[in-house]
Amino acid sequence: MQDLYPSRNSAQAEVLPRRDPVLHGAWTASAPLNREEALQFDEQGYLVLKNVFGADEVQCLQAETSRLLADTSGLNPQTVVTEPGGDEVRSIFRIHEQSTHLARLAADERLAGVARFLLGDDVYVHQSRLNYKPGFRGKEFYWHSDFETWHVEDGMPRMRALSMSVLLAPNTPNNGPLMLMPGSHRKFVTCVGETPDDHYLTSLKKQEYGVPEEKILASLAEEHGIVAPIGEPGTVVIFDCNMMHGSNGNITPLPRSNAFIVYNAVSNRLVEPFGAVRPRPSFIAAREVRPLISARGRSMEAAI
Amino acid sequence: MQDLYPSRNSAQAEVLPRRDPVLHGAWTASAPLNREEALQFDEQGYLVLKNVFGADEVQCLQAETSRLLADTSGLNPQTVVTEPGGDEVRSIFRIHEQSTHLARLAADERLAGVARFLLGDDVYVHQSRLNYKPGFRGKEFYWHSDFETWHVEDGMPRMRALSMSVLLAPNTPNNGPLMLMPGSHRKFVTCVGETPDDHYLTSLKKQEYGVPEEKILASLAEEHGIVAPIGEPGTVVIFDCNMMHGSNGNITPLPRSNAFIVYNAVSNRLVEPFGAVRPRPSFIAAREVRPLISARGRSMEAAI
Repeated sequence: MQDLYPSRNSAQAEVLPRRDPVLHGAWTASAPLNREEALQFDEQGYLVLKNVFGADEVQCLQAETSRLLADTSGLNPQTVVTEPGGDEVRSIFRIHEQSTHLARLAADERLAGVARFLLGDDVYVHQSRLNYKPGFRGKEFYWHSDFETWHVEDGMPRMRALSMSVLLAPNTPNNGPLMLMPGSHRKFVTCVGETPDDHYLTSLKKQEYGVPEEKILASLAEEHGIVAPIGEPGTVVIFDCNMMHGSNGNITPLPRSNAFIVYNAVSNRLVEPFGAVRPRPSFIAAREVRPLISARGRSMEAAI
Repeated sequence: MQDLYPSRNSAQAEVLPRRDPVLHGAWTASAPLNREEALQFDEQGYLVLKNVFGADEVQCLQAETSRLLADTSGLNPQTVVTEPGGDEVRSIFRIHEQSTHLARLAADERLAGVARFLLGDDVYVHQSRLNYKPGFRGKEFYWHSDFETWHVEDGMPRMRALSMSVLLAPNTPNNGPLMLMPGSHRKFVTCVGETPDDHYLTSLKKQEYGVPEEKILASLAEEHGIVAPIGEPGTVVIFDCNMMHGSNGNITPLPRSNAFIVYNAVSNRLVEPFGAVRPRPSFIAAREVRPLISARGRSMEAAI
């Protein structure tokens, strides 16, 4: 398969044009987003949907999160990632296959239905995780495009995937919220340096490859600016797979917590990695396509 | 001298009441602040004054800052502090005695005059520094009250000092701006652990003593909230010596830069440290009192 987005194979970083649509579906009155929302996602590469989940649902997800963080003994140990230099759990991967609550969340029409519309295809979960960023000493996450990694290390051929972050704690301006460069999703920023074997073992804690150059980041920030969506639990932040994003550390006492689900179009299933010897394990990048079954109208609340 | 604010001498952290006024002067119509500003400083412990310095003055200060950062060879090497694990200059101390521009800034009536009014006394420069926090990898500065350190390590007897930060680069919500807990200045949070000798050699980079407990910080944040003043260059942020404050790291490309001047009341000059064997060097905490001469009406611009 032709590599439309070559990266980590040159000594020189480049900014290439995106060769795929952003909004893959055609908007109609029956779409799960209104026209302005669809347009904003297309142009800006992200959307913030407030109050997608009600207080009861949020409470239920928070309780499930606390339960899983408190006792990870029932989980696949590979999927549990701790803070660099610490024991506190930072992320639990493949969570939709380890928790029935999270499985229902991933399949919920309010998320999967929107993903289906934006990606113009049936979708499956490429990656899922619970993120918990503790207060006082939450570490930063440097700028990156997820797609760059998914393409090079996992073999995702095209830009036809997106991420949804379901907030389970308030995102304030000060507690290290997700920062985005709106519009950056329309450029593919190549990275320098080959990918070492088993890079994922360290990159989930601190990434050293697939890191964009400072000069390019400065120019993207100058052109596109930086936004940091804030919101209460139950808010959903959706962003394109090629969005340049990151987050600062967090010394405030307020933890951050979210359920994170990456949807990929079934037509965009993974192939051989474009820049790594072997693909990362499937708990980070699903290699089996299990399309989510549409169940429009069935609410998660009813299912819990 | 009686120790009104004992800290680092008990195994148990405490929250004690402040035993000094915040606004030491009496407001009159001729005060350099309006009544609301004086009241806000008293109650909240901080003030943000926009456009104190004009574009020409800011440019002049920025040029002087760039000059000093680019070549520190003419400076006392002790006063130059680099990033932990790096060579980039983070702060230059005692800057008002190493640069005539910064000397004029510290003596400027728009700063010193306000300090005189708020502290109800003649004032001198307890500490001055230029801070430069680079983009992409600016480190966090954990929560602390300056007074706690100034009292324990330098021998500042009472809460009758304040800090002014003159912004020389934009403070945005995302580039690691100063965070404050408004109202926290009315409580003295004691810290646990004795002060090691020559603590300042490491504490300017990363503080490990004089660090408030997480439980207390969480309760302060719950009660007082957290604000992060933003502003353009030329803005001045004033805050009380006992304000609980800190800052997150900064992965954005935008550096942060400010000139930082601490004014102390001449009646509050340093004595023997209340919790250290020997006081820190005078470039961090001036032990000689040189009152700033009032020159009301003379602008820095004219003086440059």
